Amino acid sequence: MLQAPDGRVVATTDFLLEGRHFRRDWSAAGDVGCKAAARSLADIAAMGASPLALLVALAAPPDLPVDWARELAGGLAAECARAGASVAGGDTARAPQVLLAVTGLGDLAGRAPVLRSGAAPGDAVAVAGVLGHAAAGLALLSAGLREQPLAAAHLRPRPPYDAGPEAAALGATAMIDVSDGLLADLGHVADASGVLIDLDSRPLRPADDLLAAARAVRAAGIEGRTPGGAPPRPGRSDAEVALQWALSGGEDHALAATFPPGARLPPRWTVIGRVRQGHGVTVDGRPWPGPAGWDHFAA
Amino acid sequence: MLQAPDGRVVATTDFLLEGRHFRRDWSAAGDVGCKAAARSLADIAAMGASPLALLVALAAPPDLPVDWARELAGGLAAECARAGASVAGGDTARAPQVLLAVTGLGDLAGRAPVLRSGAAPGDAVAVAGVLGHAAAGLALLSAGLREQPLAAAHLRPRPPYDAGPEAAALGATAMIDVSDGLLADLGHVADASGVLIDLDSRPLRPADDLLAAARAVRAAGIEGRTPGGAPPRPGRSDAEVALQWALSGGEDHALAATFPPGARLPPRWTVIGRVRQGHGVTVDGRPWPGPAGWDHFAA
Repeated sequence: MLQAPDGRVVATTDFLLEGRHFRRDWSAAGDVGCKAAARSLADIAAMGASPLALLVALAAPPDLPVDWARELAGGLAAECARAGASVAGGDTARAPQVLLAVTGLGDLAGRAPVLRSGAAPGDAVAVAGVLGHAAAGLALLSAGLREQPLAAAHLRPRPPYDAGPEAAALGATAMIDVSDGLLADLGHVADASGVLIDLDSRPLRPADDLLAAARAVRAAGIEGRTPGGAPPRPGRSDAEVALQWALSGGEDHALAATFPPGARLPPRWTVIGRVRQGHGVTVDGRPWPGPAGWDHFAA
Repeated sequence: MLQAPDGRVVATTDFLLEGRHFRRDWSAAGDVGCKAAARSLADIAAMGASPLALLVALAAPPDLPVDWARELAGGLAAECARAGASVAGGDTARAPQVLLAVTGLGDLAGRAPVLRSGAAPGDAVAVAGVLGHAAAGLALLSAGLREQPLAAAHLRPRPPYDAGPEAAALGATAMIDVSDGLLADLGHVADASGVLIDLDSRPLRPADDLLAAARAVRAAGIEGRTPGGAPPRPGRSDAEVALQWALSGGEDHALAATFPPGARLPPRWTVIGRVRQGHGVTVDGRPWPGPAGWDHFAA
């Protein structure tokens, strides 16, 4: 039994598939559990709710080692603990590949859920959490650079769960977690709200950790998503590669929200743009020339 | 957003797999949706909760017809409506076979959940809903007798959802929905409660509809679960075949509950036995000589 003090519950269900969302040769079972939990818990937080519980259904081939399933459960439980939630149940079944169906439940604490559709012209756009780290991590892993500091960011994202209810309490008009990429996800908000979101590239300027990852990947001759992905693109600087990761890299599960003009935001929220009349997403007033989202990064 | 008036929520997740839980050549997509919903909603009702919502994640091959998915959604919605619930969300993914992960959420209306572990010696054992119809339906379908009245019972179970909260309000000490078979599921209650459950065969005597199905199946020369299942067992009467279905057939999702001595039960609850000191399940004081549960029916 779960207890949501005032009875307002949000719920979300997602699949996590071997080959698409994780690779067993890159991710330890604990990493997969962490990532599966983070994906669902961040989705809950992005509605302004506090994560309560996960239900996890695991389909797997009969030869899946028992230790793998045990470590998966450990990763799920550890990430739930970070979010103040717990694993409340689940199911198992046989399937040709490993497949997780994760349901997250969250408590709205008496508030209405924050949707994607409430952004209005004049609102500030702000983000909490890191951008581009998981994309940098994937590029580092693809280049065989496991020992680089950001490699782990692809395996174990660290969403700022409590920033979700915080944003709701601050009056956020719309919110989303960055799972596909900042430009792509803010595009969902812009579409649902019928507005234009214009980002300011200055506060998005990559920090030293992202620049160091870009330098390492470029030195290895691989910039983007591999294997089978993009050929190295000559002539781009570390800063350009890192900014592209920040704008289009998904799976960090940062929270991006819009706030009414004049809202006073705590330091972990960085204002990165403004909502205007129009449609779509621009950077410094212009359409971004690079790819917008994770799935298209290799194209 | 879901609203549970006092905030006590129960949740359950189950897989439904092509080949194991349904066959696309027997079940129309709407039937599969109905069955998937019924399985989850009955599990919620058996905790004494009123079903609130389902979240449904569908993995399917890329060549799955769009109409199939649409009819699946229709079946899910229709069965949810029967239970006073709705489909609140979901996810889709590609997989080699059709796989559903269904999460059910229920509202406890201020009560504690009814568990399997609360049965005590002296309690009455009662059942609401039909027994053996889905097993009869499977035998009829296996024999090619689609036009028989009970054939549809395998495709579209009709659990008595509101009997779950009713039993909780009447003080039920333990409850379960009959998904594996009456003997098998009451065995789970007996184990969890540390008691013996003794059934009375008289109130379990099969009604005319079950006897007619047994007669039709025996006339076709196939008694049990096929294909690949049991050879016909000569020498059993219609009544014996039908009683075996009632005792060991699963998937009707009748509700079986234990009530304190002296509880006054509405007519739809039929008293079928008594809780005693000991362990296991007996019929008329003796171990049942036939199989106990669905999965073993063909053995």
